[in-house]
Amino acid sequence: MKLPSQEEFEAPSLSETVPAGHLDSGLGTGPSPDGLSDTGSRELGVSKDPLLFIQLNELLGWPEALEWRETSRWVLFEEKLEVGAGRWSTPHVPTLALPSLYKLRSLLAEGHVLLDCPAQSLLELVEQVTGVELLSPELRGQLQALLMQRPQHHIQSTGIRPCWGSALAREASHDEECPLKEQHQNPLRQKLPPEAEAGVVLAGELGSLAQPLGAFVRLQDPVVLGLLTEVPIPSRFFCLLLGPPMQGRGYHEMGRAASVLLSDPQFQWSARRARSHHDLLAALEAFLEEVTVLPPGRWDPTARIPPPKCLPSQQKRSLSQMREVKDTSVPRGAPAEGRNGHGSHAANPELQRTGRLFGGLIQDVRRKASWYPSDFLDALHLQCFSAVLYIYMATITNAITFGGLLGDATDGAQGVLESFLGTSVAGATFCLLAGQPLTILSSTGPVLIFERLLYSFSRDHSLDYLPFRLWVGIWVATFCLVLVATEASVLVRYFTRFTEEGFCALISLIFIYDAMDKMLNLAHAYPIQRPSPAIAGSTVYGCLCEFRDPEGNESQWTKTRSKDIGDILSMVRKVLGDFSSVLAILLGCGLDAFLGLATPKLLVPREFKPTLSGRGWLVSPFKANPWWLSLAAALPALLLSILIFMDQQITAVILNRAEYRLQKGAGFHLDLFCVAVLMLLTSALGLPWYVSATVISLAHMDSLRKESKACAPGEPPHFLGIREQRLTGLVVFILTGVSIFLAPVLKFIPMPVLYGIFLYMGVTALKSIQFTKRVQLLLMPVKHQPDLLLLRYVPLSRVHLFTAIQLACLGLLWIIKSTPAAIIFPLMLLGLVGVRKVLEWVFSPQELLWLDELMPEEERSIPEKGLEPEHSFSGSDNEDLDLMYHPRAPEINISVN
Amino acid sequence: MKLPSQEEFEAPSLSETVPAGHLDSGLGTGPSPDGLSDTGSRELGVSKDPLLFIQLNELLGWPEALEWRETSRWVLFEEKLEVGAGRWSTPHVPTLALPSLYKLRSLLAEGHVLLDCPAQSLLELVEQVTGVELLSPELRGQLQALLMQRPQHHIQSTGIRPCWGSALAREASHDEECPLKEQHQNPLRQKLPPEAEAGVVLAGELGSLAQPLGAFVRLQDPVVLGLLTEVPIPSRFFCLLLGPPMQGRGYHEMGRAASVLLSDPQFQWSARRARSHHDLLAALEAFLEEVTVLPPGRWDPTARIPPPKCLPSQQKRSLSQMREVKDTSVPRGAPAEGRNGHGSHAANPELQRTGRLFGGLIQDVRRKASWYPSDFLDALHLQCFSAVLYIYMATITNAITFGGLLGDATDGAQGVLESFLGTSVAGATFCLLAGQPLTILSSTGPVLIFERLLYSFSRDHSLDYLPFRLWVGIWVATFCLVLVATEASVLVRYFTRFTEEGFCALISLIFIYDAMDKMLNLAHAYPIQRPSPAIAGSTVYGCLCEFRDPEGNESQWTKTRSKDIGDILSMVRKVLGDFSSVLAILLGCGLDAFLGLATPKLLVPREFKPTLSGRGWLVSPFKANPWWLSLAAALPALLLSILIFMDQQITAVILNRAEYRLQKGAGFHLDLFCVAVLMLLTSALGLPWYVSATVISLAHMDSLRKESKACAPGEPPHFLGIREQRLTGLVVFILTGVSIFLAPVLKFIPMPVLYGIFLYMGVTALKSIQFTKRVQLLLMPVKHQPDLLLLRYVPLSRVHLFTAIQLACLGLLWIIKSTPAAIIFPLMLLGLVGVRKVLEWVFSPQELLWLDELMPEEERSIPEKGLEPEHSFSGSDNEDLDLMYHPRAPEINISVN
Repeated sequence: MKLPSQEEFEAPSLSETVPAGHLDSGLGTGPSPDGLSDTGSRELGVSKDPLLFIQLNELLGWPEALEWRETSRWVLFEEKLEVGAGRWSTPHVPTLALPSLYKLRSLLAEGHVLLDCPAQSLLELVEQVTGVELLSPELRGQLQALLMQRPQHHIQSTGIRPCWGSALAREASHDEECPLKEQHQNPLRQKLPPEAEAGVVLAGELGSLAQPLGAFVRLQDPVVLGLLTEVPIPSRFFCLLLGPPMQGRGYHEMGRAASVLLSDPQFQWSARRARSHHDLLAALEAFLEEVTVLPPGRWDPTARIPPPKCLPSQQKRSLSQMREVKDTSVPRGAPAEGRNGHGSHAANPELQRTGRLFGGLIQDVRRKASWYPSDFLDALHLQCFSAVLYIYMATITNAITFGGLLGDATDGAQGVLESFLGTSVAGATFCLLAGQPLTILSSTGPVLIFERLLYSFSRDHSLDYLPFRLWVGIWVATFCLVLVATEASVLVRYFTRFTEEGFCALISLIFIYDAMDKMLNLAHAYPIQRPSPAIAGSTVYGCLCEFRDPEGNESQWTKTRSKDIGDILSMVRKVLGDFSSVLAILLGCGLDAFLGLATPKLLVPREFKPTLSGRGWLVSPFKANPWWLSLAAALPALLLSILIFMDQQITAVILNRAEYRLQKGAGFHLDLFCVAVLMLLTSALGLPWYVSATVISLAHMDSLRKESKACAPGEPPHFLGIREQRLTGLVVFILTGVSIFLAPVLKFIPMPVLYGIFLYMGVTALKSIQFTKRVQLLLMPVKHQPDLLLLRYVPLSRVHLFTAIQLACLGLLWIIKSTPAAIIFPLMLLGLVGVRKVLEWVFSPQELLWLDELMPEEERSIPEKGLEPEHSFSGSDNEDLDLMYHPRAPEINISVN
Repeated sequence: MKLPSQEEFEAPSLSETVPAGHLDSGLGTGPSPDGLSDTGSRELGVSKDPLLFIQLNELLGWPEALEWRETSRWVLFEEKLEVGAGRWSTPHVPTLALPSLYKLRSLLAEGHVLLDCPAQSLLELVEQVTGVELLSPELRGQLQALLMQRPQHHIQSTGIRPCWGSALAREASHDEECPLKEQHQNPLRQKLPPEAEAGVVLAGELGSLAQPLGAFVRLQDPVVLGLLTEVPIPSRFFCLLLGPPMQGRGYHEMGRAASVLLSDPQFQWSARRARSHHDLLAALEAFLEEVTVLPPGRWDPTARIPPPKCLPSQQKRSLSQMREVKDTSVPRGAPAEGRNGHGSHAANPELQRTGRLFGGLIQDVRRKASWYPSDFLDALHLQCFSAVLYIYMATITNAITFGGLLGDATDGAQGVLESFLGTSVAGATFCLLAGQPLTILSSTGPVLIFERLLYSFSRDHSLDYLPFRLWVGIWVATFCLVLVATEASVLVRYFTRFTEEGFCALISLIFIYDAMDKMLNLAHAYPIQRPSPAIAGSTVYGCLCEFRDPEGNESQWTKTRSKDIGDILSMVRKVLGDFSSVLAILLGCGLDAFLGLATPKLLVPREFKPTLSGRGWLVSPFKANPWWLSLAAALPALLLSILIFMDQQITAVILNRAEYRLQKGAGFHLDLFCVAVLMLLTSALGLPWYVSATVISLAHMDSLRKESKACAPGEPPHFLGIREQRLTGLVVFILTGVSIFLAPVLKFIPMPVLYGIFLYMGVTALKSIQFTKRVQLLLMPVKHQPDLLLLRYVPLSRVHLFTAIQLACLGLLWIIKSTPAAIIFPLMLLGLVGVRKVLEWVFSPQELLWLDELMPEEERSIPEKGLEPEHSFSGSDNEDLDLMYHPRAPEINISVN
């Protein structure tokens, strides 16, 4: 027996080397071949090869009456004409039979390849293509006539009946080179960018040919080939595959293979630059090197694979080819960096300590100042209007609910009017001046609890509440200013996903709990009289409460998927989608009015004066309280400062995550400075204290999502970023202020509808965090667990342990917030960071990388320590390679889903 | 330019001919290679090649400490070891890189192939494999030591922590040939059939080798190779792929390619029979011919594809290969027949007219008699016990509800007691004697409406009701006997899916409507007092009513998916799954009792005597009514006969569909005969009339599903059929009879729980019909419609038209049933068949084939007429070929989902 030689083995039939230029391009120098897959960057105007639309026309019919019919088309994915149903199939990943690729290769190898053909019309092109010596003159004439025949296109009209490119004029040839009305009205045209080019593949059997005839043409300048393509765009490539009848579906499959090849970005890139025949064949070989093969016994070749959620990056394709051919090994530590894209704050310039007093604040102001004009211009979009309505509703609900609670808890020292006024003043100021104007301030949650504790303390000790509170406010502002001066905000790098998600879950649960609690209380208090006391009351509450959620989801769904409906309806749909939350509210109000239900309505104060009778708008710092209290107030202020810092900065970290692709950057120091100033202002005026509200701010951002519009069939719309501007927030808070005088209008809004908003926002925020998924894993048998990347790399027991620890922390926080121990709640929040630090002893850095993210020290330590033996031992190369292909990004986005 | 020659073109590099034996086998002579994909036939004991378990061991670690580790395994699908997480991945369709297959080919071509190697142990095998001349003695010794090294297996224990094949004994070699405890305890072992064999692939890089070393061994007799495999089963194939370090993941990918190849049923079949090297390579070429290729730019090669719902049939693979190689063209009409598998009654011997009086009945009796003993023996299964409880609940709910309705409508001429007694007597008799004993009789729906009309007629004309009714019954029985004698039941061939689904939808809607109506009425009547009058009442009803559905779904889900949990829990789960409906009922009762709700409970009569005071159990035919009324009764009896015939036979057709894979056949004539006899009996005793109930019978069948138990990872359990027996029905009806005396026990069951069963059954039946899917399509924008096969072949407008016609028919039926015109309801049911007949003028046979099925004449007409020009014109070959791969079966199963 002879052992095969190493050389023979390393260079199998397929692995001919790829031209060097081809490979270099993948690494970012020169135009890169990933233009097709990234609509985002396409929109951002990076110069790229134009998009290619590929159409397969097949020669069909009886030998005596042959005609060309378009049977499939490609932009990113394949659409097949369902002949029976007369419609285009759903876009799907094309699957090919391997032999058809080989047949195509041999046909191309021996065929007629014309690169940079100067033809200016279809006629010239046809003459060039048929100018083969071996064809007899009559055959050439017959072939030219056939190629000039007008093909039948299936143009999907907006109605239900397809319009078969005016069947009456079927015999008409291409004499009229001007495109038809149908071609112009083709809805596909709107989806293709103006610079798009076409590639046409013609394939079929022709009895009069004795030998196969193959031709591949690249036109020097793209030319509109009359009626050849279904859309009147200029064609760049033309591929002809004709031959005598062969059995099976030979030419059909070969035509598809040629089309799929042309639709491949790498092959396209090479085909545009090929200098010869050989370059083309080399590109085909390179394509074959990279195809994915599914075994026949385990996969039905006719099954249609829906488009994947994210396309493989062309950069990586070039890179992996590079690796294969040029032996460029990737250093060990590299994948770890790639993996850590999500929340790595280390590289964030906003979080670099300058070392100077107020250095961070000054940098923030400088950076944000340059964006200031655009913060108003960027708001000129209809979507912002819808966002204003939605967030306004949330804000006044918040103001009225927590204002009411505070009023009850402080015997009127704080009331609904203060709540409205404070929200308006604080919110508007913040939106005008802060670093992250997408933030919505509110007095929810922990701060409210703290204020309540403060009031009961001052009542128990017979103190004058408002002056005492003013002193606390002064101290908090002072402490916060110290934090700003010392650039303490860079510590937010220690707020990892563990902390963020714990906090976010807590706030979401508070939202849900409050909404349910209010609803049930209302049901008690207002047993509504229609149609029978027993049923209607709770049915209506239940109905409204449940209805919010599906309606909300519908909104998400419509927003993310309705973009490419491709006809007039899609405009309508988009608007409905943007306004779905507002429509839901109006529907709720309408239903309430229509049924005449005696639901409690939104009530706002009728007079503009402090709730507590006998006080003016300004709080005097010295009145009934002893002087030393001004100093003693520093103690609670310390706790409150911690709380405010944590609350403010965790929210800011969540809002400024990398996934949201914010362009204008964050302003952690500036935000905290604003909060400090507002603390002083609200304390002096006796208004509630305000801090960034996680859930409402996320809802605000979510209502301002930008998505790509023109999408190839099957391509999901891409998230492009958030409309970052100051106007929506500002308008919301001005409206909130105006609402004090809008009692006659607002009285039509039933409270259950508003609580529905709360519930929806809480559930949405909760559903979107990875923590929730992991809690579900706890209850799921292994067999039915989803194939999360996380689970591929971390033992299940470790995942469960991490989740259990998080759950325990959450439970502890909830208990503390509900008991008199709530005063230490801020310290407990800080404790979350401590717990996370301790987890470094329990979990390996690799595990934490998947379950959470790394803290600054760990990040630094990874390159030194390297991977642990157990991991690097067996398949680490394999695993890392897998990682390279799986950026972990979209798994953890809060509410942007 | 030179045109490639036709020969060169038709015989590309890959299409070497497949050995003839290989191809013949696919057509049914000799053992066929589809053993792996069809667990069903595997269970049925057809002699096949044993199942092959394939394991890939890779050589990993540093050069100085190499060790073998199992990294992937295959039964049907690939499972990869997630090293980091220490668990097996979810099973997925393996994807390969094309170059790895070529590398494997060249290695095999030059490598060492040992067919029918007589080795009896690993040591002998290793000696044989390393007996290559080119190896130096020391290298051979080193290699032998390496191959004898014990590999590390990941054996998934039942707990969460994996057990790494006792890590302490890592250095131990294969000296101890006896399998370890871990191997025996491997849960995978339970899933593999006892006769399963193993194939082991060893791959890796070995620095000391100068040239690649490839070996493929087929053992003469399968041998347990000690600790080489993770399960202690004998190995048949052994494949070694070693070589000097090469870049990329060469040997890993090659090992995977070899494993995937071995796991392919066709390759396996050939490899078991290969006589030489060349046969193996030819099988590899055949594999390559058939692979599906995904283009690199549109598919991420590392994405895992979940196992498809149904595997491609190996028969078809051979057939399509046959086609390709031997030019066996399939005749035009053939696919149409294949497509029509679902409800084609033409071939059904039960529906062939014998032409003799009572010929069909006699045949039915003969056929069923042979199954009679097994009809009782087949019931010995725990599942039947659960089915009895579930159907018993449904039956008594039915008896009490409709008994109550009938009692109200007939002023007590019929009452709950009669309902119980009648159900018990009629049901038990039917189950004992009928042709289809899975049928559950009831007096629901249309018959009930008819009886109500009859009563109001006799009341309006001051007739004595029961004697009049007796005469109607006598006439109906007479007419039905005439229908039996004339073998009229063969006309059920005209009941196509259109009729079946229309009827089924109507009955399901009646179920749902009744359940909701009852529930709302109860809520009115019983405004329950806990915890507050306004909320709890309707909350509890709502809760129970909604709770049934998810709980029911859970049952389906657990039943169909929990089979292969693979540890102790799975036993427990299975039982819980089977009893889920009963558990839900008990939970409902328990909750009711625990909360002490004043829900209305099930009340059964306390005394055993006719509800109408003063009548005995026998109805006298002549009493107060004039004599001619006995004759006049023939008129309503005619209508009722039509109704009974339609109702009975549509239900029978639905129950006897091909998808349910009933083994014992139907008995349409015998069933109708039984109904006629029971008609007479119940009329004479003054009990309600009974006919087969679609929805309950379907629920009955559903609760008796058989599914395959031992499933390869990733393979869904297969539906094997229904436990066809008479006992469950019989016991249900005996219990129903006994229930008359069980008032003290039954009084704990709250009515809302029972209505929940109704609602669940109605919703389940409605959800499972294609009509419901098509109604949803009406409301869905084209873009978001699912990729139904139907939509690929029928224009959407035609689908909508068909649905609209069906909806109109359903609406008309509903209206008629709800108005005094209900008397003509039976004629309208018959009209459904007429409407369907008219549809032949509106829709083409092709369209009807997809939307419905063909009526007998159409079926006959198709081969003559051929396909219409428009369809045969363009892609008909292509489309038909697609059809061949897509049997339409699982789309229309009612409730067996």
